[in-house]
Amino acid sequence: MNKLPLHEAGSRLKKVQQAITEMQADACIITSAVNQYWLCGFIFDGYLFIFPEGDPILFVKRPSDIADERVQPIRKPEQIPGILSEAGLPLPERILFEADQLSFNAATRLQAALEMPQTKNISGELRKLRAVKSEYELEQMRESARIHAKVYELIPSLYRKGMTDLELQIEIERQMRLHGSVGIFRSFGENMDIFMGSMLAGDNAQAASPYDYALGGEGMTPLLPLGANGTLLVPGTTLMVDMAGNYRPWMDDMTRTFAIEHAPDIAYKAHQISIDIHNAIIKTFRAGTLCSELYLLAEEMVRENGLTPYFMGTVQQARFIGHGVGLEINEPPVLTPRSKEILEPGMAFALEPKFVLPGIGAVGIENTYVVHETGFEKITLCEEALVGI
Amino acid sequence: MNKLPLHEAGSRLKKVQQAITEMQADACIITSAVNQYWLCGFIFDGYLFIFPEGDPILFVKRPSDIADERVQPIRKPEQIPGILSEAGLPLPERILFEADQLSFNAATRLQAALEMPQTKNISGELRKLRAVKSEYELEQMRESARIHAKVYELIPSLYRKGMTDLELQIEIERQMRLHGSVGIFRSFGENMDIFMGSMLAGDNAQAASPYDYALGGEGMTPLLPLGANGTLLVPGTTLMVDMAGNYRPWMDDMTRTFAIEHAPDIAYKAHQISIDIHNAIIKTFRAGTLCSELYLLAEEMVRENGLTPYFMGTVQQARFIGHGVGLEINEPPVLTPRSKEILEPGMAFALEPKFVLPGIGAVGIENTYVVHETGFEKITLCEEALVGI
Repeated sequence: MNKLPLHEAGSRLKKVQQAITEMQADACIITSAVNQYWLCGFIFDGYLFIFPEGDPILFVKRPSDIADERVQPIRKPEQIPGILSEAGLPLPERILFEADQLSFNAATRLQAALEMPQTKNISGELRKLRAVKSEYELEQMRESARIHAKVYELIPSLYRKGMTDLELQIEIERQMRLHGSVGIFRSFGENMDIFMGSMLAGDNAQAASPYDYALGGEGMTPLLPLGANGTLLVPGTTLMVDMAGNYRPWMDDMTRTFAIEHAPDIAYKAHQISIDIHNAIIKTFRAGTLCSELYLLAEEMVRENGLTPYFMGTVQQARFIGHGVGLEINEPPVLTPRSKEILEPGMAFALEPKFVLPGIGAVGIENTYVVHETGFEKITLCEEALVGI
Repeated sequence: MNKLPLHEAGSRLKKVQQAITEMQADACIITSAVNQYWLCGFIFDGYLFIFPEGDPILFVKRPSDIADERVQPIRKPEQIPGILSEAGLPLPERILFEADQLSFNAATRLQAALEMPQTKNISGELRKLRAVKSEYELEQMRESARIHAKVYELIPSLYRKGMTDLELQIEIERQMRLHGSVGIFRSFGENMDIFMGSMLAGDNAQAASPYDYALGGEGMTPLLPLGANGTLLVPGTTLMVDMAGNYRPWMDDMTRTFAIEHAPDIAYKAHQISIDIHNAIIKTFRAGTLCSELYLLAEEMVRENGLTPYFMGTVQQARFIGHGVGLEINEPPVLTPRSKEILEPGMAFALEPKFVLPGIGAVGIENTYVVHETGFEKITLCEEALVGI
């Protein structure tokens, strides 16, 4: 298994230490798997204590055998003050913790165990730090995108007449796994469930979902109301494929659309508008742009083409056209009409202007771009046209 | 899609209302997907308000089109007091909420929006209520177990010489999905990631993991350190298959073990002790038993057979031999040496006495049982012997 390179671990730690100093705190406690992985290169059940300077301490419940001299084995958080005191360290009075991820119950227990320090939320700040990627992280995203494209290229050969959306999805899932997909697909937020991605065929693309993804879909069970619902793939409709790009810890995000044999003219037209929006955005913007500008340009092109009622859904319309991507599929920045975030070099974002056409299905594409001073680098290189299968 | 039968929804609601009354609260707010599904039969982004009597109110952000007259659309929790007041309802002063599931940040925002009521955690109580299943729920578990057995019966035909654990797992995953597995695999707790289950081949069964599952495994990536790690399936070793029984919203849990061609005698002996423990527990206990008694009987049989160093792991040993199962894979009760929980009729639990043999692999079986007044009903009916593939 790949170990996290030392210089990567070091520079990430420094960024967090700087945030601790800026937020005038004595320590930061990391408990989420995603941020433990980002900072240590591995995951454990326990508490990663980071101080404004010096080495972190890893208070670890499980696993029992981590080979890292910074580890202090514990059974419960109530042991932490004693261990700090034995090491001659003061008990931190102002603590930053991941209030967006840690449960209320676990957070209050931790606070009591540490003798009720003042606490502040660092979740958003960590997400901001993670939004700007290192070259090492970006290279993982490019690798993931290359494999993602290879798998999508297999789709025409996996399709058989008379298949349902789910049957085709199962064959794509198998190819994903054979090509190295890690399976789990991390997203940020409460109740943001997803399994391996989403396939939307025909009018299932109109179904509203409880989740904050671009489009919905009924799903196969009310326990996971998202994506494929068993729709038969019939000629004259479209199939939108938005399966996970989870081939590396740092992911890419890519959507492609297929016509089942052929589709009505309006489908090709709307699909082309999606591609045109991508091209206009690449041509117009670069690092330093306000995220809202991307949205507003897309919205204007949609309006000019009379497609507003179909933009990002029908019954329920998403008010964003893209989002950052990395260790989680939804990272900052977010491309909304009012976003005040600015695109910085090293950020990576997915752009997904999509349309849902009643009686036909969803059309449009999604690509992942890396932000450079000079422009946006497209990393999801794969046929973009609406082609028939 | 199956709708939740009215009498099921009604009896579950009554149980929660009784808990609200017993806990002397004015209302209970449900935010987790699993408990929304349990109580409504569907999932939404929002807040399910339950009062000690009368109809609940569903404050829904998304989806926009739920056909349920109890729905009040909202954009944010701060709108709730106004809506309650317009309906002539007082703002609840003592509120129960899911403090084990809701993030600290979301919980404190909700508390502020509701003008800082007194709050108490109802997560554990809801888990206790869900632990006792209705006949409708148990029948789903039996159906899931029947499909689970069918998929496991295919394993010998999916195996090819020279495969790795992961390659075989991918073919099993495909069969699971073709047989109706919903994909996502719900577990309870912070950072309890898993994808479709776990396969442990040879010495990978010894690898300690950060998660609170029975056994570990290195996994394919430090981002998900659990299960298959690419081990080649070689003659003389064992392969333990503990893939998800998620064919219905109410799940079953089942493990079977295969020898690659053959295994050393000790593997067959230890595997038989696991089966003997199952049989001794079925013969000895029934409803009314303390959960700790099941553990202690198993532990004694393990000790008598000199297998203690291999019981539930080597490097890291789990201190439980089973757990409740239902909408989540880890529900109450838990079978530990000190558990004070009592097995009640209608509970369903997975029993998984397992051994890890260095140089060979994991052996043993896991079955799911339903608790009746008269004894335990085994619902995972599938060949139990250690057979060669």
